[in-house]
Amino acid sequence: MTSHLIRHVRVTPIAFRDPPLLNAAGIHEPWALRSIIEIETDSGLIGINESYGDLPMLEALAKAAPALTGLSPWALNDMETRIAALVTPTQTASEFLGTQVSLAPGTHVSKTVAKVISAFEVAMMDLQGQLANAPVVDLLGGAARPAVPFSAYLFFKYAEHIEKPYAPDPWGEGIKPEQMVAQARRMIGEYGFKSIKLKAGTLLPEQEAATILALAKAFPGAPLRIDPNGNWTVPTSLKVVEQLRGVLEYYEDPAPGLDGMAEVARQCEVPLATNMVVTDLKEFRRNVEMGCPVRIVLSDHHYWGGLRATQRLATLCQTFGLGLSMHSNSHLGISLTAMTHLAASVPLLSYACDTHYPWQDDEVVQGGRLQFDDGSLRVPQTPGLGVTLDRDALARLHDNYLNTTIRNRDDLGQMRKYDPAFTGHQPRF
Amino acid sequence: MTSHLIRHVRVTPIAFRDPPLLNAAGIHEPWALRSIIEIETDSGLIGINESYGDLPMLEALAKAAPALTGLSPWALNDMETRIAALVTPTQTASEFLGTQVSLAPGTHVSKTVAKVISAFEVAMMDLQGQLANAPVVDLLGGAARPAVPFSAYLFFKYAEHIEKPYAPDPWGEGIKPEQMVAQARRMIGEYGFKSIKLKAGTLLPEQEAATILALAKAFPGAPLRIDPNGNWTVPTSLKVVEQLRGVLEYYEDPAPGLDGMAEVARQCEVPLATNMVVTDLKEFRRNVEMGCPVRIVLSDHHYWGGLRATQRLATLCQTFGLGLSMHSNSHLGISLTAMTHLAASVPLLSYACDTHYPWQDDEVVQGGRLQFDDGSLRVPQTPGLGVTLDRDALARLHDNYLNTTIRNRDDLGQMRKYDPAFTGHQPRF
Repeated sequence: MTSHLIRHVRVTPIAFRDPPLLNAAGIHEPWALRSIIEIETDSGLIGINESYGDLPMLEALAKAAPALTGLSPWALNDMETRIAALVTPTQTASEFLGTQVSLAPGTHVSKTVAKVISAFEVAMMDLQGQLANAPVVDLLGGAARPAVPFSAYLFFKYAEHIEKPYAPDPWGEGIKPEQMVAQARRMIGEYGFKSIKLKAGTLLPEQEAATILALAKAFPGAPLRIDPNGNWTVPTSLKVVEQLRGVLEYYEDPAPGLDGMAEVARQCEVPLATNMVVTDLKEFRRNVEMGCPVRIVLSDHHYWGGLRATQRLATLCQTFGLGLSMHSNSHLGISLTAMTHLAASVPLLSYACDTHYPWQDDEVVQGGRLQFDDGSLRVPQTPGLGVTLDRDALARLHDNYLNTTIRNRDDLGQMRKYDPAFTGHQPRF
Repeated sequence: MTSHLIRHVRVTPIAFRDPPLLNAAGIHEPWALRSIIEIETDSGLIGINESYGDLPMLEALAKAAPALTGLSPWALNDMETRIAALVTPTQTASEFLGTQVSLAPGTHVSKTVAKVISAFEVAMMDLQGQLANAPVVDLLGGAARPAVPFSAYLFFKYAEHIEKPYAPDPWGEGIKPEQMVAQARRMIGEYGFKSIKLKAGTLLPEQEAATILALAKAFPGAPLRIDPNGNWTVPTSLKVVEQLRGVLEYYEDPAPGLDGMAEVARQCEVPLATNMVVTDLKEFRRNVEMGCPVRIVLSDHHYWGGLRATQRLATLCQTFGLGLSMHSNSHLGISLTAMTHLAASVPLLSYACDTHYPWQDDEVVQGGRLQFDDGSLRVPQTPGLGVTLDRDALARLHDNYLNTTIRNRDDLGQMRKYDPAFTGHQPRF
């Protein structure tokens, strides 16, 4: 019997164009960073994955990678134990806090172990699927749905990056409500999405609320969400949700902290969702102990500890009557495919998932950009993840990385280029 | 590519000798019932499992089996949805409550869906392992430990069944403390167990406490547990635990109901364990909402919904700081092997697991009785469960079933043969 033990782990940092998208922390830089993980067996199989690409994550991956040598691709529990022993949250927090001025939304410095485990788990499951001749979704219990719906993820944005590093993106400016309706029309026209999410917390709350109302009018019946990333005070959160009465599917992270969310929840009928205050088991427990002010957890396998950990999160949600949806960051097709396998395997995950995918125009997988059908992605049925690396594209995207000086996502610093007085103090409104 | 779709499900009821073991409900009947499940693919592969063998379970399995036809062995989520639709707890509860006078310990009438799902899931995972060329433990994330420790499970018992259906078992009478110490010596001598569990709730509590104290003296340092199956009042529970101060590893189901357990927990330092009052997600939630009077959940994949569901239970326990151990019923080697794969894959499950295995003297798997090494079972490394059916043994055990009139476990009715005045009223002491 051929042995299939892990021989080598390769991590390639990449960078790809990212539009000037506004958020609570500031504005996206012109290049988004990711890491491409390849795990190779002594039999020559290669499992792949995509994860965060900031410097602390690359350092953590590099530190952890040797621990995989000699492991079977099936040995996920063993891998997790080894990673946890190597990359402790305590070490990481102190090491990393010095290198980052601020945390961009969706990054969590204390989550390094979970993030590294996830980065390796998905690649190992890609190998498992190749060994078992089964798609990853089957290793997760099989598809509960044949295709996974995603939402139109709208951003307020400028027409062009301040330093004009490349030609302007085709989306144009998105500030005024009518521009945002046009952005939604274009995105829905191209992808077929049925739900709409608006990233908020960046313009005046009245303007953001007016945008939601304009979207509600332009897309009657479409589930709508707004996400100010905790950049509103409790009174502002309550004022806005009153203005949006009857319009929102859920209300994502209006006020900062679980305590702030709990204050909002006490006076708000719309269920609160989060990817900021319930991000691990400890925070999940605290939410339960507070009577579940957060009603919908936005999962993200990249920081919840992987695909299987996110399935277990679903059972936690089921036990306490919570809903489950899915968060995203700027990403390419490997992450999107992993999200699709996972979401298809979780019966509870009945909301359309977030994805930044329409904001990217590049790809690292063979066949290029993934194709949505009526707002959904079909779950691949070929062995493993069902996507493979385009080596030319990987080389090009790695060159992008070498050619940019960005090493840590810094939406705040980027915004200061536009507005030197911008403090990033939260909640801002 | 060959297709491997489920073509046929075969369920064979079996019966095997069971000693006259005393418990809170009464006494074991001379024959224990189980079902052997075989799931066959159109490619000729067969996945096996062992589950409950009472008539309601056989009826539920028969009702559910056709739903599997045409499914891939990987389609566990689909299987679960189909079973839940066919065998709803509501239907089942009303159907089944009429056919059973009382519920034997560890049986839960409302758990039929979870029990049927588990019965099929394990057999489907046995198929998956054969397809993937991987042991079931690998499909569960790989072994967190190479071998799984079990405990010496002591029972008060009579020397012989009342109707003398076959020659007496070799264990002799087990009533007096010195007889129980001898029972423990014999079992530990044969199997090498390091922990000891005493099934209680059947003799006078003073006598049962005296037995634990005798065991503590005879086996210094061995973790000890006592399980009266909720047959003690709260005052009795507190009185006994005071007598056993400093001796117990955990205190299993002393008083009935979660409310009773909570009363005990308020005045008792020994952590409480249960397989009776936290048996599903709803009860888990209630325990959390009551501040976790139960500190250790005794899992059992046979009624928790399968191997994967029990792994998810482990995450629930981890989230709320609870411990996890494993419950058993009278069973043969397929169940024991499935328990071993599961326990090996759950890092949190650090207690020695319960097993009734030493009380059985028969087997249905090739190679005969499983061999313990120093109180532990090594996790099989061959594809699937790693055990296969002995067809001659299966035929013989099925003949046992045809030759007995027992169709539902009835420890209460059996005890009335010894003592017509026995009411089974609980708590008795």
